[in-house]
Amino acid sequence: MLPAAPTLVIGNKNYSSWSLRPWLLLTHFNIDFEETSVSLTPQGLRDRLQSYSPVGKVPVLLHNSSIIWDSLAICEYISEVFLKNTGWPDEPMQRAQARSLCAEMHSGFMALRQQCPMNVREHRSVEMTEALRKDLQRIDEIWSECAAYSATGWLFDQFSIADCFFAPVAFRCQSYDLPLSPHAQQYCKKLLNLPAMRQWAHQSSKENEVLTHYHVGEIVA
Amino acid sequence: MLPAAPTLVIGNKNYSSWSLRPWLLLTHFNIDFEETSVSLTPQGLRDRLQSYSPVGKVPVLLHNSSIIWDSLAICEYISEVFLKNTGWPDEPMQRAQARSLCAEMHSGFMALRQQCPMNVREHRSVEMTEALRKDLQRIDEIWSECAAYSATGWLFDQFSIADCFFAPVAFRCQSYDLPLSPHAQQYCKKLLNLPAMRQWAHQSSKENEVLTHYHVGEIVA
Ligand SMILES: N[C@@H](CCC(=O)N[C@@H](CS)C(=O)NCC(=O)O)C(=O)O
Ligand SMILES: N[C@@H](CCC(=O)N[C@@H](CS)C(=O)NCC(=O)O)C(=O)O
Repeated sequence: MLPAAPTLVIGNKNYSSWSLRPWLLLTHFNIDFEETSVSLTPQGLRDRLQSYSPVGKVPVLLHNSSIIWDSLAICEYISEVFLKNTGWPDEPMQRAQARSLCAEMHSGFMALRQQCPMNVREHRSVEMTEALRKDLQRIDEIWSECAAYSATGWLFDQFSIADCFFAPVAFRCQSYDLPLSPHAQQYCKKLLNLPAMRQWAHQSSKENEVLTHYHVGEIVA
Repeated sequence: MLPAAPTLVIGNKNYSSWSLRPWLLLTHFNIDFEETSVSLTPQGLRDRLQSYSPVGKVPVLLHNSSIIWDSLAICEYISEVFLKNTGWPDEPMQRAQARSLCAEMHSGFMALRQQCPMNVREHRSVEMTEALRKDLQRIDEIWSECAAYSATGWLFDQFSIADCFFAPVAFRCQSYDLPLSPHAQQYCKKLLNLPAMRQWAHQSSKENEVLTHYHVGEIVA
């Protein structure tokens, strides 16, 4: 018997970088799921999200009357329950490297996250601070080194959760014209051209809610 | 054939909360490993750690000529390679809840982490700000609710990676006399009494390096 379809609760597609990660995994792998959207305003979060999540953040996955409330935990669960673990590289040490990269993204890159908030419809330049330059240098190193070793151009041998975790950075690079080396640029384009990424971008362009606290100049938590 | 023993690179036991997590998992489950220590000073990190880690942070696990450079990725790897996956609860949805809790700790609780840095030898009070109160309230909710459902008093049915992730918070509660509800207090004591935790505390008390940037009043990243 197939497992029942889960429901993914996400924020505005234009702004919600954490929502993009599990959405991309589900969509790229053609997993059947329902999608529910919550506006990333204090009121939207309060009114709609509190009933789903103990932490009041998106994404949240609802499945079999339980909830999973973090992007990384959601991706792990999807891989286990819907993908027979193929969301990660097959070899344990490769899988550990992929998880290290996701964990690095999950807990770091604060300058990139704050100074270049995801805003898919945006196109403008940003001030290059020292902290942002360092974050970008590390992104460039990851993208160019990993993708150079893999036969497919993805970070590991096949498209994996690690690629999902860096996907919002590709939108940021596009929105703010962030400088990348040729190899990193190539990986960034590969991400942006993925059908599921194009679908997300298209849907972002149809949204018309503007959340000024996600625009450059404001601090984003 | 048994897998070769890994090496865990950690920081000062008195201060390094992220190091404690995988160390506790390895030690509690009696896994054979080597331990290498790096002083959490700019010089210690520069001189010794750069050769191990792409991000210059501890903990790092070295195994079979590869490195894993984040506490969560290290715990996942240990569970897969040395514990036949018993580092997590057995049932997929329980495992997803455990992972959500770890992810919450991994990317959040900033006020608790900054205002109450782990300092095992310390005993003093701290100012209770609104942000700290909110973080503590969530910790209290997690500790009292989860531990109430489980038969053993651990967060899930058996001691798991989730308990390792909250272990540094127990030291913080002890150092700064943080207020907890009776059920949360009980869980906190259970953690502090775990033989591996007592061993870590004992070894912290023998260290004599003082790192003032980890003492209250300074901002810790
Ligand atoms: N660590 C969480 C972060 C989730 C997160 O911060 N989500 C943002 C939107 S992308 C949010 O819900 N913000 C609302 C708030 O913080 O109140 C995860 O990986 O899922
Ligand atoms: N997300 C990382 C965080 C590691 C971390 O911040 N470690 C601290 C010590 S507990 C460190 O190495 N700090 C030195 C620095 O940031 O330069 C993990 O979970 O391993």
